[in-house]
Amino acid sequence: MSFLFKIEKKNGRMRAGKIETPHGVIETPAFVTVGTKATVKALTPEQVASLGAQVVLANTYHLYLEPGDEIVRDGGGLGKFMNWHGPTMTDSGGFQVFSLGAAFGKNASKISERGAEPESVADSDEKTSVHEALAKIDEDGVSFKSVIDGSVHRFTPERSMEIQHNIGADIFFAFDECTSPHAPYEYQREAMDRTHRWAQRSLDYHQKNVKRDVEAQPTQALFGIVQGGRHEDLRKESAKVIGEMKTSAGVGFDGFGIGGSFDKEDMYTVVGWVNDILPEEKPRHLLGIGEPEDFFGGIENGADLFDCVAPTRLARTGNLYSAHGRINIKNTKFRTDFGVIATGPDEKKCSCYTCTNYTAAYLSHLFRANEMEAATLASIHNLYFIVNLVKMIRQSILDDTFFEFKKDFLKKYRKN
Amino acid sequence: MSFLFKIEKKNGRMRAGKIETPHGVIETPAFVTVGTKATVKALTPEQVASLGAQVVLANTYHLYLEPGDEIVRDGGGLGKFMNWHGPTMTDSGGFQVFSLGAAFGKNASKISERGAEPESVADSDEKTSVHEALAKIDEDGVSFKSVIDGSVHRFTPERSMEIQHNIGADIFFAFDECTSPHAPYEYQREAMDRTHRWAQRSLDYHQKNVKRDVEAQPTQALFGIVQGGRHEDLRKESAKVIGEMKTSAGVGFDGFGIGGSFDKEDMYTVVGWVNDILPEEKPRHLLGIGEPEDFFGGIENGADLFDCVAPTRLARTGNLYSAHGRINIKNTKFRTDFGVIATGPDEKKCSCYTCTNYTAAYLSHLFRANEMEAATLASIHNLYFIVNLVKMIRQSILDDTFFEFKKDFLKKYRKN
Repeated sequence: MSFLFKIEKKNGRMRAGKIETPHGVIETPAFVTVGTKATVKALTPEQVASLGAQVVLANTYHLYLEPGDEIVRDGGGLGKFMNWHGPTMTDSGGFQVFSLGAAFGKNASKISERGAEPESVADSDEKTSVHEALAKIDEDGVSFKSVIDGSVHRFTPERSMEIQHNIGADIFFAFDECTSPHAPYEYQREAMDRTHRWAQRSLDYHQKNVKRDVEAQPTQALFGIVQGGRHEDLRKESAKVIGEMKTSAGVGFDGFGIGGSFDKEDMYTVVGWVNDILPEEKPRHLLGIGEPEDFFGGIENGADLFDCVAPTRLARTGNLYSAHGRINIKNTKFRTDFGVIATGPDEKKCSCYTCTNYTAAYLSHLFRANEMEAATLASIHNLYFIVNLVKMIRQSILDDTFFEFKKDFLKKYRKN
Repeated sequence: MSFLFKIEKKNGRMRAGKIETPHGVIETPAFVTVGTKATVKALTPEQVASLGAQVVLANTYHLYLEPGDEIVRDGGGLGKFMNWHGPTMTDSGGFQVFSLGAAFGKNASKISERGAEPESVADSDEKTSVHEALAKIDEDGVSFKSVIDGSVHRFTPERSMEIQHNIGADIFFAFDECTSPHAPYEYQREAMDRTHRWAQRSLDYHQKNVKRDVEAQPTQALFGIVQGGRHEDLRKESAKVIGEMKTSAGVGFDGFGIGGSFDKEDMYTVVGWVNDILPEEKPRHLLGIGEPEDFFGGIENGADLFDCVAPTRLARTGNLYSAHGRINIKNTKFRTDFGVIATGPDEKKCSCYTCTNYTAAYLSHLFRANEMEAATLASIHNLYFIVNLVKMIRQSILDDTFFEFKKDFLKKYRKN
């Protein structure tokens, strides 16, 4: 079996485990590093590996548009193409189709990017007429305009799977519709029901077309996505339907994504509802989530995997994580600060490459001088902080110290 | 003795040797990697070291303005501040004062950046009234406006040396005036004579203030700069004056820079005139020069060191060196080229990190997608090409195969 999820320890909903993939093991809970366009922004794969990252998630929508999924395929598939030797994942492209697809129809779903900083217009209802982030949805799929050149494209569940097969990661996601948390109940139900029908088509296409090893086992895994917005009945129904979904040959999903744009106060509750219903023996990925304070609630409620662009996006603007919250290294006080850049989650001096080899004054200088190396050094720190925070949470589950660690970390982190 | 230049092999004007510095040996001829603002753009120091670079040159003008030379000093000096463990150099700041200093006086000298691609306006006489690159020169020094905020600053030979002492590299340059190759003869003579007086003041200040080791030997070296434009009599006079210049205690320069903006066709001739006169036992740095075809003529005429921003600047626009001239990786044909990115100077597959681990199609994708990693991978290739080309030339001197190597390389390189 190419994919195997082993739970090593459980405590209530939370668990520590391991996902075996053809490109190595992912120890869970884990933060999945985002490499949207087949590169983790500003970092070499060696830098990504050396900061402790276990797995990279690329973006189906972006790679389909540029360089094109067939070019990634002809380049040996995602891992070989980008020189990343560990496990890889691709999302379904659904989220970007709905959040980035330019307007040219109705049945619009308008959402902000999961877990990311608010974009300039995407969060503002008033500006909808100026720059709508829309796509045209029908039962069969979605038509959308390219964010690059405005050309019209179409994704269906089968097409998303075909593109993901071309990109060739280890783990794929079923094609889903991601709704706004503020969409009305009736639209949430309609979108969820459609996502379930798309999930079945994704699963069927995948099982029929996936490459198999000598023992006829699939060499790539497919995760189904649970939707349903903030509504308890919809989320529970979606978890049950997606959790039990099977091909006619009786094969289900290899794991699950929990999708949707959450209001943060709802998120942990929703994750708990869903994970009480999803099959316990398969991994669950809380999609697009990953600020430091999010992991504790997500893991406590049964999530195993997280991904988020925030660590690298914040890094590129000089915002660095520390035990006491975010600092902005461009702040004047850092100009002459020859001390440690930041603390790790445990309040000790951070052990990352950046904090080990450079002072706050130097990194501050690089940002002021608009040097590209600023983004590299800051991204290494933020990813190291996040990746290792999740590793520390994992260890705390194994050591039965999760709740103390959670209390200590959040008290310090939120104080700032 | 902290600094020692040993010539291992001579052939006509050319030589292969070694410069010993407190931070390691520089095998010459060598390309000096440019790290203008205390960072080699888009690269970590480990990446710079692993591509074979031996020494980094930072910019006195830029570091004086940002973060400030005292901050570099308080950060432990250039090498420690930027985490580069090998030898370091700083230029005198003179070149940037004259090429970047905004206009507010007369006695203007207007030149394009040495060895670099023409800037948008610096090469166009017509646009002088719109954006003059000027500074006000008097016998004592130069007043200029900051390229960052227009504030007024003043460099004298003593101030340039004081700033370089603060920055704290291993090798400094005397403060000089760099004239346009098109300035009239009379101005070239006037500027050269002033540069000689400034050289004496630089040398005196340096010898009085340099840090010394337990044996009272200077821990930092100073190179004097030869000027004189394209004029044989001026260049020869400058080489004689600078070459023989001494403090009242009889101490001369530790090495020499050959300065000026050259018309390329004059350059090798000028270098030959100068090096026939400069003391043979000290190293000579051909300032701001370093395109692949330049090294052969420079080395043949007695130059030991080179520096140039072109390799990294070209890299950031997708222009890569190969045995057959430059290629632009953004060219459409590379989109689906899964082969080797470029050849090395010997026409074999380039052995750099980038060419070893990535295809042309991948690097082309990174440029099209505006990913920062594009600049990193391209800079690694171009610097590796240049640094190793000079190493290959060095080996050809030791092996007595210089002229064959020169002929072979230039025939292929220029054909493109």
